[in-house]
Amino acid sequence: MVALTRAELAARAARVRLLLTDCDGVLTDTGVYYSAQGEELKRFSIRDGKGIELLRDAGVETGIVTGEKSGTVARRAEKLRITKLYLGVNDKQALLERICADAGCEAAELAYIGDDVNDLGIMRAIEAGQGLTGAPQDALPAVKEAAMYVADARGGHGALRAFGDWILRLRQGHA
Amino acid sequence: MVALTRAELAARAARVRLLLTDCDGVLTDTGVYYSAQGEELKRFSIRDGKGIELLRDAGVETGIVTGEKSGTVARRAEKLRITKLYLGVNDKQALLERICADAGCEAAELAYIGDDVNDLGIMRAIEAGQGLTGAPQDALPAVKEAAMYVADARGGHGALRAFGDWILRLRQGHA
Amino acid sequence: MVALTRAELAARAARVRLLLTDCDGVLTDTGVYYSAQGEELKRFSIRDGKGIELLRDAGVETGIVTGEKSGTVARRAEKLRITKLYLGVNDKQALLERICADAGCEAAELAYIGDDVNDLGIMRAIEAGQGLTGAPQDALPAVKEAAMYVADARGGHGALRAFGDWILRLRQGHA
Amino acid sequence: MVALTRAELAARAARVRLLLTDCDGVLTDTGVYYSAQGEELKRFSIRDGKGIELLRDAGVETGIVTGEKSGTVARRAEKLRITKLYLGVNDKQALLERICADAGCEAAELAYIGDDVNDLGIMRAIEAGQGLTGAPQDALPAVKEAAMYVADARGGHGALRAFGDWILRLRQGHA
Repeated sequence: MVALTRAELAARAARVRLLLTDCDGVLTDTGVYYSAQGEELKRFSIRDGKGIELLRDAGVETGIVTGEKSGTVARRAEKLRITKLYLGVNDKQALLERICADAGCEAAELAYIGDDVNDLGIMRAIEAGQGLTGAPQDALPAVKEAAMYVADARGGHGALRAFGDWILRLRQGHA
Repeated sequence: MVALTRAELAARAARVRLLLTDCDGVLTDTGVYYSAQGEELKRFSIRDGKGIELLRDAGVETGIVTGEKSGTVARRAEKLRITKLYLGVNDKQALLERICADAGCEAAELAYIGDDVNDLGIMRAIEAGQGLTGAPQDALPAVKEAAMYVADARGGHGALRAFGDWILRLRQGHA
Repeated sequence: MVALTRAELAARAARVRLLLTDCDGVLTDTGVYYSAQGEELKRFSIRDGKGIELLRDAGVETGIVTGEKSGTVARRAEKLRITKLYLGVNDKQALLERICADAGCEAAELAYIGDDVNDLGIMRAIEAGQGLTGAPQDALPAVKEAAMYVADARGGHGALRAFGDWILRLRQGHA
Repeated sequence: MVALTRAELAARAARVRLLLTDCDGVLTDTGVYYSAQGEELKRFSIRDGKGIELLRDAGVETGIVTGEKSGTVARRAEKLRITKLYLGVNDKQALLERICADAGCEAAELAYIGDDVNDLGIMRAIEAGQGLTGAPQDALPAVKEAAMYVADARGGHGALRAFGDWILRLRQGHA
């Protein structure tokens, strides 16, 4: 893990206005359900939904940035009232400038949680921009090494909730 | 966990007439399955269904109190012949008086199992009213701390069954 | 667990002609998937299917005895060419005589694997009749205590396969 | 596990042009979801999909060899742009010659990952032909013993990805 002082983490947490999350492997356990007609289902966690509500109550919006394009995540985002949804993103790091422009914020106001190697670029850019980064318990080793926070929870089982709760505790001086 | 003497727990168990349970995270593993058309499925456990039968045989009814409104839990409740079903509840604690009125019972005749922070209010009210409280193995830490019983089983994998069996053992003097 | 000598277990295994299994909690992980229209899906394991083939090759048929009536298990049984299917069974022990009559065999030629308290009666009857009994890793404690074999595998994750492989190894003198 | 020197493993990895994988138990967690109409769904992992992309980028194609015939795996293969798909294979070892002819390669250019006893024949043939073999963490013991690499990940939870990453690290001299 990337080690920062508690004071530095708290300062970064105090600034966060937008938490970005990967979808598959963070909001899900990487699973995708196929029938003989093709992709049918993905499984999300109510616990993450509650985390997104708690973040919103604290003034932090949530956005989703994913390489996939399936409608399942769009429906889940609607249910959670997430409007910042970036689907089919090949190069997440390259999109960072546009995400900041859309949200009217800087990299220092971002947090990001991801689980796979295509999350490393944007995580390092956000780290350099003085934002916060996290990973689920079952992220790939390289991603856990690149993160400031590794959740006890696995993807699809509350990893996003844990990351959000950690940020909220840092803001309250409890982490 | 909240620590009470075995005698106190047994006295409370002897009075229980209605066991209330949260849905997501207790009857399920927090999972919700989406297709491109929206929410499709939730996964329940047959083992909990058997627990609800065993409670009914012992004179304890089961009710469900959930913040969600999906039809999946209504169908599952029908299958289990659960008639006390409270959907879309924003403030569970505030509903307690009505639940007691509906069932013709007092808080001291209630047991409650929950997993997330929106369960804390009703759990504390039932504790104060001299009822019983429990949590699944994978509940949030704050909920496990607030419960009198923490199941070995996780949500969706027999947590409710374990809570019910514990109450039945207390009534029989075996817990 | 019920402890018998290896010689006794091997003698019983040599006689087995019909392996009976519970469905929910043995062939599944106790899960049942509901939509807003009601029960939709159960999840089975291909690994158990392979175990049923291996048993058939060794002259042991498989039957399913379950308290539920859903069509899912009937479809799964067809796929596995299981013809001995008993659905909606309230008292499994009481059905034992008919099962033996249907199959033209005695209790000493039966093996049974179950996970919940409604399996205890038939397990004890088969034990008394000199048959074999087993349980998944995540069966209820009382069922594991009543079984001669407890699988390393959980229900829905190869428990039946492990039980069948154990019987086949006993027949070959390798267990 | 089959023990080879690191130099031998690296030499074999350098030659690999086609990675073959079993479906059920490797790409899935052995699960198959039934409704009252029959088989409906299988669950795959996005993480394996990413692994197949990384292998393709390194010049290694992926093929699927399975005893089952369900359309689910065909749809998943299409999504992953896998054209080498062998369904309904009763004897995988017997198919090896045809697979090599189709791909214009030799056994020494193959890698194979499987989880059950019907994978042992082809694994031993590929080992003899100087290819590479692997198994998921939760493969049957006999298969893990027969493999050169056992993944930390379970089937359906990144086992194929781990096997592919291991081959790529061996090619880069990092394993």
